[in-house]
Amino acid sequence: MNCFKEGEYILIRYGEKKFLRKLLPKYSLNIKKQVLKFDEVIDKPEGIKIGNFEIYRPTLEDIILLGFERKTQIIYPKDAFYIAFKLDLNKEKKVLEFGTGSGALCAVLANLAGEIWTYEAVQEFFKTAQKNFKKFGLKGNVKFHNLDFSKANVPENFFDAAFVDVREPYPHLEKVHKALKEGGVVGFLLPTANQVIKLLESLEKFFGNVEIVEILQRQYKTVAERFRPEDQMVAHTAYLVFGRKLISS
Amino acid sequence: MNCFKEGEYILIRYGEKKFLRKLLPKYSLNIKKQVLKFDEVIDKPEGIKIGNFEIYRPTLEDIILLGFERKTQIIYPKDAFYIAFKLDLNKEKKVLEFGTGSGALCAVLANLAGEIWTYEAVQEFFKTAQKNFKKFGLKGNVKFHNLDFSKANVPENFFDAAFVDVREPYPHLEKVHKALKEGGVVGFLLPTANQVIKLLESLEKFFGNVEIVEILQRQYKTVAERFRPEDQMVAHTAYLVFGRKLISS
Amino acid sequence: MNCFKEGEYILIRYGEKKFLRKLLPKYSLNIKKQVLKFDEVIDKPEGIKIGNFEIYRPTLEDIILLGFERKTQIIYPKDAFYIAFKLDLNKEKKVLEFGTGSGALCAVLANLAGEIWTYEAVQEFFKTAQKNFKKFGLKGNVKFHNLDFSKANVPENFFDAAFVDVREPYPHLEKVHKALKEGGVVGFLLPTANQVIKLLESLEKFFGNVEIVEILQRQYKTVAERFRPEDQMVAHTAYLVFGRKLISS
Amino acid sequence: MNCFKEGEYILIRYGEKKFLRKLLPKYSLNIKKQVLKFDEVIDKPEGIKIGNFEIYRPTLEDIILLGFERKTQIIYPKDAFYIAFKLDLNKEKKVLEFGTGSGALCAVLANLAGEIWTYEAVQEFFKTAQKNFKKFGLKGNVKFHNLDFSKANVPENFFDAAFVDVREPYPHLEKVHKALKEGGVVGFLLPTANQVIKLLESLEKFFGNVEIVEILQRQYKTVAERFRPEDQMVAHTAYLVFGRKLISS
Repeated sequence: MNCFKEGEYILIRYGEKKFLRKLLPKYSLNIKKQVLKFDEVIDKPEGIKIGNFEIYRPTLEDIILLGFERKTQIIYPKDAFYIAFKLDLNKEKKVLEFGTGSGALCAVLANLAGEIWTYEAVQEFFKTAQKNFKKFGLKGNVKFHNLDFSKANVPENFFDAAFVDVREPYPHLEKVHKALKEGGVVGFLLPTANQVIKLLESLEKFFGNVEIVEILQRQYKTVAERFRPEDQMVAHTAYLVFGRKLISS
Repeated sequence: MNCFKEGEYILIRYGEKKFLRKLLPKYSLNIKKQVLKFDEVIDKPEGIKIGNFEIYRPTLEDIILLGFERKTQIIYPKDAFYIAFKLDLNKEKKVLEFGTGSGALCAVLANLAGEIWTYEAVQEFFKTAQKNFKKFGLKGNVKFHNLDFSKANVPENFFDAAFVDVREPYPHLEKVHKALKEGGVVGFLLPTANQVIKLLESLEKFFGNVEIVEILQRQYKTVAERFRPEDQMVAHTAYLVFGRKLISS
Repeated sequence: MNCFKEGEYILIRYGEKKFLRKLLPKYSLNIKKQVLKFDEVIDKPEGIKIGNFEIYRPTLEDIILLGFERKTQIIYPKDAFYIAFKLDLNKEKKVLEFGTGSGALCAVLANLAGEIWTYEAVQEFFKTAQKNFKKFGLKGNVKFHNLDFSKANVPENFFDAAFVDVREPYPHLEKVHKALKEGGVVGFLLPTANQVIKLLESLEKFFGNVEIVEILQRQYKTVAERFRPEDQMVAHTAYLVFGRKLISS
Repeated sequence: MNCFKEGEYILIRYGEKKFLRKLLPKYSLNIKKQVLKFDEVIDKPEGIKIGNFEIYRPTLEDIILLGFERKTQIIYPKDAFYIAFKLDLNKEKKVLEFGTGSGALCAVLANLAGEIWTYEAVQEFFKTAQKNFKKFGLKGNVKFHNLDFSKANVPENFFDAAFVDVREPYPHLEKVHKALKEGGVVGFLLPTANQVIKLLESLEKFFGNVEIVEILQRQYKTVAERFRPEDQMVAHTAYLVFGRKLISS
């Protein structure tokens, strides 16, 4: 059996709440007068229930949502999941990312693709993303660059997919286009309609097969006798724009 | 350059419409009096625009949506994408699927996980799924079984994740529970509220950390001067239920 | 008892389908080899069930959705309902409408407010709206004008509320502002984000307390054993913008 | 000019926030170091802007959302608006309501229909609703009853429409059916899927033309340069079920 070891991160579920904690001796989680002593978790198997606490190893989603330090608005898993698939990832693919931010999307891409090159102009974000990766032992297939993408020396016809998450993606379209292989997929994340409109104005010179999508996630209560949606939901994170590299005939 | 070759599948985009076609000599696509002759596509690079036709290699999403033969309601990519991530897949993971259907989810899982064992009781579906995989040259890491899961000889403590897409998942909970490793993730797809309610009644004996989710995808028009959502959308495909294997303490 | 009379309009529900028909002798409704003979409906009470046909008098919603001739995109009841309330209508209120269209919103406003003045520049629409009202005997508290609003002689400080449903509302803001009483409510219906953005740029000079809203209606299947949302829904009709008349201090 | 008078309620908008206040001398509203002195509002016209404060008379929606005391979950205006129209109200209609609650829906119905009879079993709610009506001078066409509907002496074939908002509507279906005129419209508000399923099981004996609807309201930011939906929204209030009185043939 692959039991919990001292020092690893654990996911604790209590009622509707979730917690991500480092499993350290003598530590505990206190909630509503209930106590989970971490000493009782060490060397126990995953999926154990102690009192009303359930303990698991965290999934990547748990790590991103509960464990990542955020200096920026993170990309929500609902969006990150969708993006990774639209980019048609698998282990053979090389991906370019511009706008590393806190590294949330990067962690998802790294889990699925072969190689990620990610660029972040702001040093603070660059460091935060790396710290997040290190803290949770995430994949080593990511090359972090603390550079404005416009100043970066990026290979041409090299990437299978690219994702751009910066406020002003418009000046970078040509460079992203060049960096992609023929048929490469590009994606953009933009919070406002104004940004999407502006992007559409210059996009079609470089990219075709354009799609714009919003993903909404509706969570439900898990009580059998009162099945119904949660009261509140996230109404908007961003518009996602996708396209494919066009070449001149 | 990696040009289009005779016999491969191509994605053609014309205006808002998409087509998946086998690239055969002398064939063509006719739409609104415009003609795309396939002979002009062979040996051309991906991303080429001929008249108003754009031509790409299809992504896995394109293949599932446009190319898969359907004997059952397929799992939509918006759901398949989300499921794959909730199951926390990567190349090291082994996945159990019950209810292969037309193989749409299976194709997504196979693209991301290391090994898939999938079960389908209905012979017609079993054959359709295999045909779909063969037609598009999809991954060989899938073991297809034409068996009712309840009669299958499934290894215990073996799978990292399991997904169940059958009308009556309730009798199979214990067997799925046993097949999963400690901490394993389980998912269910259920179209009606009645099914979710019934599942919740027996679920918590075996699985914890339960979440119920609906994913809604809102598509937007891609014209810069008239940015707005599409008129119609898919309002409901299914409720998705996820949990983690609990063990008795 | 207030039985069905020859010549009136009836609503017929059969399974999930609805029909609006004029109740004429010797006529019938044929659907899936079932026949409803209208002679059997005349002089019967409302709410009667004949075979699998249910027969009622139509509500205003039924009349608009099933009975109105449409020369334009009509305002959906889900939006019309919301608009009428945002305009804070009751029997004492006078309402200005610009863009009569097919008269759908006008019919809702007329049912609730005291007096409606409606303007429509296109003669064909102007006639259609009047025909729709006449056909269903709708309220006589509407003054139809076949005029471009910008050329109309409209009283000032006269209306409690105004609604503008034209492609280019921007040039009319000042005139609408003048026509409203102090504190008057204004509403706009705009299909695209571009229109809303343009409206917002000039709106705040004239109107305050601005709100922008989209109303989504999700319909459910009505079978007890399979409770779930319908497969498809209307994803977008329009953005609704509301404000209150500002006066200079 | 119809200026603000001492003692009336005013709606104050400041940035994205709204406040409902009684206009009393010497009072003021303080927000982010800005002060609105109510003495400067008295005798001023509606729609005046003082500093960054806009002042209006409240609409019925403002009164319900900001002014009503709530002992129960109130019916949201988005739902109340829709209900009122589904019930096909106008000044000639008599409406039965069971489950007065805090009186929010009752206030909407009273504003549009001719006569409302409302029943509330819980004395505390009965008093709250009346207090809310009195406080804002709402319509006198409502007969409040502090009675369980099952014990009430209700006239038969009397009401044009009925609305039921109680946890267990099932035992009351026959009585509601009798109270309605032929063709009368009935509505129910139910938060959980379980309740809807149970209602559907007994509904069709009494009511036809059944529809089940959820209304979602998506609010947008009102800044021209950054047009986008609000971050959060109300994901669920209740399922609304509507039907028409069936009579036996």
